[in-house]
Amino acid sequence: MNVYGKHYRTIWLKPDDPKVVQIIDQRPLPHKFVVEDLTSTDEMARAIKEMHLRGAGLIGAAAGYGMYLAALEAPQSSFATFMDYLRAAGEKLKQTRPTAVNLEWAVERQLAEIASRATTPAEGVKAALAVATEIADEDAEFCRRIGEHGVKIIEEIYEKKGDTVNILTHCNAGWLAFVDYGTATAPMYEAQKRGIPIHVWVDETRPRNQGARLTAWEMVQQEVPHTVIADNTGGHLMQHGMVDMVITGADRVTRCGDVANKIGTYLKALAAADNGVPFYVALPSSTLDWTICDGVRDIPIEQRGDDEVKYIQGLHEGEVKKVLLTPPESPAANFGFDVTPARLVRGLITERGIASASEEGLLELYPERRS
Amino acid sequence: MNVYGKHYRTIWLKPDDPKVVQIIDQRPLPHKFVVEDLTSTDEMARAIKEMHLRGAGLIGAAAGYGMYLAALEAPQSSFATFMDYLRAAGEKLKQTRPTAVNLEWAVERQLAEIASRATTPAEGVKAALAVATEIADEDAEFCRRIGEHGVKIIEEIYEKKGDTVNILTHCNAGWLAFVDYGTATAPMYEAQKRGIPIHVWVDETRPRNQGARLTAWEMVQQEVPHTVIADNTGGHLMQHGMVDMVITGADRVTRCGDVANKIGTYLKALAAADNGVPFYVALPSSTLDWTICDGVRDIPIEQRGDDEVKYIQGLHEGEVKKVLLTPPESPAANFGFDVTPARLVRGLITERGIASASEEGLLELYPERRS
Repeated sequence: MNVYGKHYRTIWLKPDDPKVVQIIDQRPLPHKFVVEDLTSTDEMARAIKEMHLRGAGLIGAAAGYGMYLAALEAPQSSFATFMDYLRAAGEKLKQTRPTAVNLEWAVERQLAEIASRATTPAEGVKAALAVATEIADEDAEFCRRIGEHGVKIIEEIYEKKGDTVNILTHCNAGWLAFVDYGTATAPMYEAQKRGIPIHVWVDETRPRNQGARLTAWEMVQQEVPHTVIADNTGGHLMQHGMVDMVITGADRVTRCGDVANKIGTYLKALAAADNGVPFYVALPSSTLDWTICDGVRDIPIEQRGDDEVKYIQGLHEGEVKKVLLTPPESPAANFGFDVTPARLVRGLITERGIASASEEGLLELYPERRS
Repeated sequence: MNVYGKHYRTIWLKPDDPKVVQIIDQRPLPHKFVVEDLTSTDEMARAIKEMHLRGAGLIGAAAGYGMYLAALEAPQSSFATFMDYLRAAGEKLKQTRPTAVNLEWAVERQLAEIASRATTPAEGVKAALAVATEIADEDAEFCRRIGEHGVKIIEEIYEKKGDTVNILTHCNAGWLAFVDYGTATAPMYEAQKRGIPIHVWVDETRPRNQGARLTAWEMVQQEVPHTVIADNTGGHLMQHGMVDMVITGADRVTRCGDVANKIGTYLKALAAADNGVPFYVALPSSTLDWTICDGVRDIPIEQRGDDEVKYIQGLHEGEVKKVLLTPPESPAANFGFDVTPARLVRGLITERGIASASEEGLLELYPERRS
């Protein structure tokens, strides 16, 4: 997507030096746009762990490119020692964010593909680059398809309403969380491309404010009309007909359609149901967890440090600073996600089409999962 | 209530100089505790307008004391010119927060009482002080009674559960919003006094963070166990049995029981209903609006400046600073309140007892309102 009018992905090879991977450092956004060079597996591992980059799809792509960097720095004396080095590097990458499913998936995919495509370290380096590129391209392609399927819903609302379609979103399931397009944002960007007038309500998404920081920045860059709101606001907007649909991303979706997503998603789904507003979740199939059904009971919810609630980061006199919001003595709790029961979800927008949020609906799109 | 172990109200006469009114300046809380001297109607008007103090009950008491300051500075030559001055001062006070019902009510009460109790400016000054004291005392007494009625609900839950009662609250309907005790907090403080173990989930309450700043500070000062949470969190807590009841305050309650309160209250009421958690609203009868029934349709919702969403205030290296949270180009919307339909409210805790959230329920407690 665009940054100051120029096309970017979130991760790419440095044009004049293909042994360097470049990423957008998301930490100082929206206040500063910083491109970071990563030249080693260790640097990539730190970038993932310290959240220079985040988001399911992007973490997978980063692990893919991390394995390419590992191949470059691995001993080239024999293929066996080369592969030993890659396996160790893969373990290091996997440990950065232990709950990120895509991380393990990308590392394992690299190891299997390199082993099957190459017999020498030199071939291994080539294979690692090819697979990293494939993972990134596939992520972008899946998001593009999510956009093509999701835009039909926006089109339908527009045809009925004949006026700007108001879409509410929570957190950042935008292109910054993937390689390109994003999931929740892909239908919005596709609508914009097709000339359908939209306006996006951007939940700021406390405590880490991925909405106010990242989604709002994406909307500014893509010139999508939008308005940032406190997370408390969506219910009031829906009561007064100011929201035509909700689209969020997902961190994990069960085979029965329960949706784990950023904390607060469930509250918006309740308000949508109470006001007859359709609530959609956009996700690539890699987010589906076919092993569980009851998400409220079975999806573990990550608890993070209380500093993310007690402090917030923003721009003060040109510098990014952290300020304390609470009495220093007050404890805070920081649950990262909540689970929206399938009964509150109108549909799941995937790369294969739109499924109802139910086991039957998902199996219709993914028949290979029928046991 | 207590501040660093010493008893305070939110407004009082300066002990060694009864021509000066003192208040707690709430703006730098929780980072700094500042007592402010107010020596004129103009100073009181500015303190109300610029929100050195806020909250329905406290604004009423401040208007009462503001009229006492007006009486002190009024010309003492004749009772007619004295009263003319008071009427003009009253207009000035009423214009500070045009939507605050208690402001007009307190000014009119002062004018009527002074006119009926006094015939000279000197008597007028005495009457103004007496009425200001009455308004403040009545506010504190109503809150105390709300605590006595509300604590019964907490007691019942405790008897059934036999363990700490977890109460979620939104915004600050604490003693800082009234003269003493508060409304939503009064049952909590009474429970603490009676030795019932409670723990309070404090919604931070974006955008102005009255929960994280003021309610949390009250809890620290009263030594009530509490945890600050992002506004997004309550739904998850309720899904997992971590909330036994919700108590909020109210800015206006219709005769049919619809509740206007700080933006986001409706989302918590939806989550409470979805999880069978009882949702209570505490209010003095001055908050009841007998003229309307459908709150979603008929209560006007104040929109405030977008700076309150885009910027936030906190402590950085010992100083209170404001930081920018969004891209500077992003617009923001700032609706101050939302309306929770009566169907989601288990009961209204008033100074006369607990009413069901319905016209019949309210008329049982306030039979004088039957037409």
